[in-house]
Amino acid sequence: MTFRVGVIGGGQLARMMVPPAIELGIDIKVLAESEGMSAAIAATGVGDYTDRDTVLAFAETVDVVTFDHEHVPQAVLRALVDAGVPVHPGPDALQFAQDKLRMRERLGELGIPMPDWAAVSTVEQLDDFIAEHGGSAVVKTARGGYDGKGVRVVTAAAQVEEWFLALDEDGRGGALLAEELVDFRRELAQLVARRPSGAVTLWPVVESVQQNGVCAEVFAPAPRSAGRVAEMAARIGTTIAEELGVTGVLAVELFETTDERILVNELAMRPHNTGHWTIDGSTTSQFEQHLRAVLDLPFGATGHRAPWSTMINILGGPADGDLDGPAAAALADQPTAKLHLYGKEPRAGRKIGHVTVSGDDLDEVVFSARAAAAFFQN
Amino acid sequence: MTFRVGVIGGGQLARMMVPPAIELGIDIKVLAESEGMSAAIAATGVGDYTDRDTVLAFAETVDVVTFDHEHVPQAVLRALVDAGVPVHPGPDALQFAQDKLRMRERLGELGIPMPDWAAVSTVEQLDDFIAEHGGSAVVKTARGGYDGKGVRVVTAAAQVEEWFLALDEDGRGGALLAEELVDFRRELAQLVARRPSGAVTLWPVVESVQQNGVCAEVFAPAPRSAGRVAEMAARIGTTIAEELGVTGVLAVELFETTDERILVNELAMRPHNTGHWTIDGSTTSQFEQHLRAVLDLPFGATGHRAPWSTMINILGGPADGDLDGPAAAALADQPTAKLHLYGKEPRAGRKIGHVTVSGDDLDEVVFSARAAAAFFQN
Repeated sequence: MTFRVGVIGGGQLARMMVPPAIELGIDIKVLAESEGMSAAIAATGVGDYTDRDTVLAFAETVDVVTFDHEHVPQAVLRALVDAGVPVHPGPDALQFAQDKLRMRERLGELGIPMPDWAAVSTVEQLDDFIAEHGGSAVVKTARGGYDGKGVRVVTAAAQVEEWFLALDEDGRGGALLAEELVDFRRELAQLVARRPSGAVTLWPVVESVQQNGVCAEVFAPAPRSAGRVAEMAARIGTTIAEELGVTGVLAVELFETTDERILVNELAMRPHNTGHWTIDGSTTSQFEQHLRAVLDLPFGATGHRAPWSTMINILGGPADGDLDGPAAAALADQPTAKLHLYGKEPRAGRKIGHVTVSGDDLDEVVFSARAAAAFFQN
Repeated sequence: MTFRVGVIGGGQLARMMVPPAIELGIDIKVLAESEGMSAAIAATGVGDYTDRDTVLAFAETVDVVTFDHEHVPQAVLRALVDAGVPVHPGPDALQFAQDKLRMRERLGELGIPMPDWAAVSTVEQLDDFIAEHGGSAVVKTARGGYDGKGVRVVTAAAQVEEWFLALDEDGRGGALLAEELVDFRRELAQLVARRPSGAVTLWPVVESVQQNGVCAEVFAPAPRSAGRVAEMAARIGTTIAEELGVTGVLAVELFETTDERILVNELAMRPHNTGHWTIDGSTTSQFEQHLRAVLDLPFGATGHRAPWSTMINILGGPADGDLDGPAAAALADQPTAKLHLYGKEPRAGRKIGHVTVSGDDLDEVVFSARAAAAFFQN
């Protein structure tokens, strides 16, 4: 094909778009933050994604612009749109991924089930919220958080006092997001893709296990989710994609509560860690589907290739920084494991890769994937 | 991983090594014949693969050298080995892929079943061979042939007279390869991979259908091959890989004769068109396995992800040169089809891509793959 897709940001999500771009014959170009990033093989430029001129110049080399992350400022996104560049997802959708208060407000208007929440501008307001919600709350900064950063569980407003001070300092007033601490049985994620022309496609809802606020394991499909749970997750995902005008891949992180409700936790408007299993486990991966979506090409099938897939993140990596030994050991020990490394240096807590195993028996694929990933934790 | 694999040649086989290299975290570099080739995204240099200094300089940037094709001259290969560069497959093995007379001679020593053959240096010798084999023969140039080039079915030696003249002109004496015209039921292919340390792995034997000497369709596994046929193909493939010291992927093209014999037709010491189905249809693709093999890393599992896979080549392409329209139509019509385009301009008979479909029913996957590929034949 002659299509040229430009990705802003050179992290592992951009990297994982490269294989399907190569397979489909799509020319992929990446504007990376610095040299030697994960997506370096497709990097045609290095520059600041907050700089309007840098991004506009990059956009001139491609047919459509999409993203490795959600941090491109609205002003830059609007400048792209004003210049006639197709941007997917566009600024009108991305604002809800960039600002959690706006997201909560909008989802509320749509009647989407969520944890109780409030915008709190003062210590007093937060303490009131905590008192009304059983003595605890989850507090989030509205902007800039990811992978557990900018999220804190508190029992008193004083525990996020510096966040309130930062709000004062930014001079815009502003507020923090307070949410009820949900009594959840497990976390789920619904992955959706939507084309600019409107078509929506979904993968099966998955279960995700977080460690320290970071996705650690994903089971696909979510065990015991057939029927009501899958239907609710699909309905929520479709509604959000359509009503917020999301284009490309949307991930909706969900709580399944102990009282059988499905509540929206977070949104991500890009390929997402909870969808990495699709590279090996689905007929069409989230990365291929994202490319198809942003080019408004027809979707591929989203059925799973095996009854079960498990994805385990490789977090941190070996203390001595050597990935070759663990990789060889993992490949030798687990011949069915699909190993993915992101070209990143090991560092405590850092996502440097993942392992996926697919098969007929959930216990076996979980064991095998964990066994392979464990070689990197020495 | 920190491994760097260098691929000589920038065609579609090098291109298709790039996705698994990215997934595994292997640094892949390509020495391309010219700018803008299929594997351009990984090209770190453009140069003449017959030039010793060019190839040696490229080899200094990588840990192991492998190939997109079998045309690197023995002298250049030996220079690499002499310089201490790991080369896979090595010159001792590659000589049998580069010279069909040597291949026939060596397979004969190993007792591998083959068509009757003879080295013929004169028109008289060839006419004698034709007379002894029912009035026809397949004549092949010993070197330089591929995709049906350098292969001719004849009933009289005069039909390849210019090939004999060329033999005289090259001043080395030399000979053509004459083979009996085998009465075959179908063609099969056995794909094998072998590590330098000795381990061998095999995919299921497949059936291939040729059109005008070019692979057109592949059915995997070969229908009605379980048992004796699969065992014979596996034994032949393993013996050749081991006895010829092949490292990396080896493809053995086979005839299944009407009198139930399995005969070796051709060898290729690289990933092969009859193995493209493994990208989507096998737990480990031939391209990933080739990378693992040349790095002497443990092999991945070679089981199929679905009972049946069919691969259909896209040959030639649309007369108007537009791939975008057919691609969009194919994706819309066949959501389970995996489309692969090689970044090549359409030209009569040229391999510009392929389609793979996997599923439970052979008739359905064949229909679906053919339907998708047909959009490119307008």
